[in-house]
Amino acid sequence: MQNFTFHNPVKILFGQGQIRALATEIPPAARILLTYGGGSIRSNGVYDQIQQALKGRVLFEFGGIEPNPTLETLNRAVALARAEGIDFLLAVGGGSVLDGTKFIAAAIPFAGDSWQIVASHAPVTQAIPMGTVLTLPATGSEMNGTAVITRGATREKLYFSSPLVMPRFSILDPETTFSLSERQVGNGVADAFTHVVEQYLTYPVNAPLQDRMAEAILLTLIEEGPKTLAQPEDYDARANLMWCATLALNGLIGAGVPQDWTTHAIGHELTALHGIDHGRTLAIVLPAVLQHQRKRKRAKLLQYAERIWGLRAGDEESRIDGAIEKTRAFFESVGVPTRLADYSVSAETIPVVVERLAGRGPVALGEHQDIDAAAVGRILALSL
Amino acid sequence: MQNFTFHNPVKILFGQGQIRALATEIPPAARILLTYGGGSIRSNGVYDQIQQALKGRVLFEFGGIEPNPTLETLNRAVALARAEGIDFLLAVGGGSVLDGTKFIAAAIPFAGDSWQIVASHAPVTQAIPMGTVLTLPATGSEMNGTAVITRGATREKLYFSSPLVMPRFSILDPETTFSLSERQVGNGVADAFTHVVEQYLTYPVNAPLQDRMAEAILLTLIEEGPKTLAQPEDYDARANLMWCATLALNGLIGAGVPQDWTTHAIGHELTALHGIDHGRTLAIVLPAVLQHQRKRKRAKLLQYAERIWGLRAGDEESRIDGAIEKTRAFFESVGVPTRLADYSVSAETIPVVVERLAGRGPVALGEHQDIDAAAVGRILALSL
Repeated sequence: MQNFTFHNPVKILFGQGQIRALATEIPPAARILLTYGGGSIRSNGVYDQIQQALKGRVLFEFGGIEPNPTLETLNRAVALARAEGIDFLLAVGGGSVLDGTKFIAAAIPFAGDSWQIVASHAPVTQAIPMGTVLTLPATGSEMNGTAVITRGATREKLYFSSPLVMPRFSILDPETTFSLSERQVGNGVADAFTHVVEQYLTYPVNAPLQDRMAEAILLTLIEEGPKTLAQPEDYDARANLMWCATLALNGLIGAGVPQDWTTHAIGHELTALHGIDHGRTLAIVLPAVLQHQRKRKRAKLLQYAERIWGLRAGDEESRIDGAIEKTRAFFESVGVPTRLADYSVSAETIPVVVERLAGRGPVALGEHQDIDAAAVGRILALSL
Repeated sequence: MQNFTFHNPVKILFGQGQIRALATEIPPAARILLTYGGGSIRSNGVYDQIQQALKGRVLFEFGGIEPNPTLETLNRAVALARAEGIDFLLAVGGGSVLDGTKFIAAAIPFAGDSWQIVASHAPVTQAIPMGTVLTLPATGSEMNGTAVITRGATREKLYFSSPLVMPRFSILDPETTFSLSERQVGNGVADAFTHVVEQYLTYPVNAPLQDRMAEAILLTLIEEGPKTLAQPEDYDARANLMWCATLALNGLIGAGVPQDWTTHAIGHELTALHGIDHGRTLAIVLPAVLQHQRKRKRAKLLQYAERIWGLRAGDEESRIDGAIEKTRAFFESVGVPTRLADYSVSAETIPVVVERLAGRGPVALGEHQDIDAAAVGRILALSL
């Protein structure tokens, strides 16, 4: 096992009716800015529950945070928050709203060009406290300190991390997810599944507990994802999916083991260039990464083939082929196509993605930092 | 899944050499009280590493915290801490030192008879901040807010819990555990294993992720425990054992599921009356609890039989018998005898234990609160 630090102070309030806890979780004198997305929280009852819980509080609103939240939109929220003396942010929605609000939290007290928080990882030395009400299980943003932000002007999609933007609390009520579309559910399953694989499928470091906990999440996603799509109001399936997505990226399964975030790095470019949903880009790239890296990841691929997909017969190469094929088939089974062609993207995008990545410095992705620009091109060719 | 709150802000620093981090984790101006047990930290090099890391700091010492730490001993530490204006506690040792230090942390600012914190769960409204260096993986105290304290005068062993006594940080360096005796390792394995079973082996509530994570810890303990005994300086085995014991009782696997702490409740009486090591009392009581509750726990016992012990053949009763027998055999395999007779305790203790438990109020243990005083007697009879 590798050395690690694990520190996750986010308070999780999980289950039916937990939105009521906002009344006690947010300091009474706070000047609150409620941030949200396209307005689905008004139609699914979440907005009303929040208003009820926060009756009599000083409450401002900022709606319209888009999927892949942009600097341009978020800067407007920062201006509003500064003008109104906001001292608590309440993000209500999915990963985009939560990520965007983390940026707002860091940008409000930031002196200078706030894009530098993301573009050059300018140190975040303070942030406005925030809480969240999660309505879309997928990104894990509700229990970590990372956010992915897009600058619309240049189509750059980049991340920043700081413990200061970890939510003080996150409320996870599975009932708020009943009204999600099949597409949102499928994307969320693909996102969470990929998060786990990126922390699990590298090389063995004798960390059997982390391995088994990662496998626990994968097996549960495989079981509960299709169940959720078949029965959208199955509370337990929703709850299990939600808790899986949170634990997939709260630092626990990645503690003490190598990680490989290649799929996310390439996926972000596909979203930035082609507007493909984040979860879908991962389903496109991950099978290709596993295929391209099959020698480097051999031992773990065989473990994954056996423990997740039950592949024990046949020679090792065919088991690895089988595991990659099963992964692809799983994504397709939750309604997420896995080929660039399915999104009308052709091979012409390959040199563009490679050039964009290379333009930000030497490309050295993967658990061995040996996936260079040329390898990114080959991976994309495998995902056509 | 049941509703839950999960909030664990303990910072874990895990791995070789992490004791050095004390220099940055403890505030520079702190007046520190170092608490420890019988002095093994002087022979195994831990004491020197701590002195090195805290060179130049204001550092007091309080040694001699015994296994099953007593109110009488801890009150002396409280007096010292008050006299010296201590504002940070550093507990170095196993669960007893950590639990004792949690009590000291709460008792220093407590007005009145500090035993009431434990005996009548008097509210803890403030506590001195503390950190830990764990040297014995077993109790999970390093990542939770619970402590078990004994009053020597009356042989009462009781617990209290408060988020205020959660350590600010815990340092887990597996190398500090190389010098543990086989008995300490075996006891620790039995303790951690039982913690998991007490949160897992109740009745199904459709929480497959919690189930699989609990199973992940059990399987890893079964694998790494004997490995550690065979090769005391196998770093990875030590590390895996240590991380298992921490995650066994940090609130994660118990979030959203029923729990059954019967084994601990009865075990504490056996320690208080007969001085049997804590881990050993659990190995005595747990198989008897499973046997006595086999109807109530039927579905989970069958799952445990299959997933942990690979028992898939035969009728259901024989698989349950097999799982209980395998549990007993596992404890014995790590050097922990599982019968009261092995500790020269006879049936005469049964009415004494029953009376002591009943003397504190109605006995209603287990996930259904239906284990009454008579049932405790029957459970003990099964463990003779």
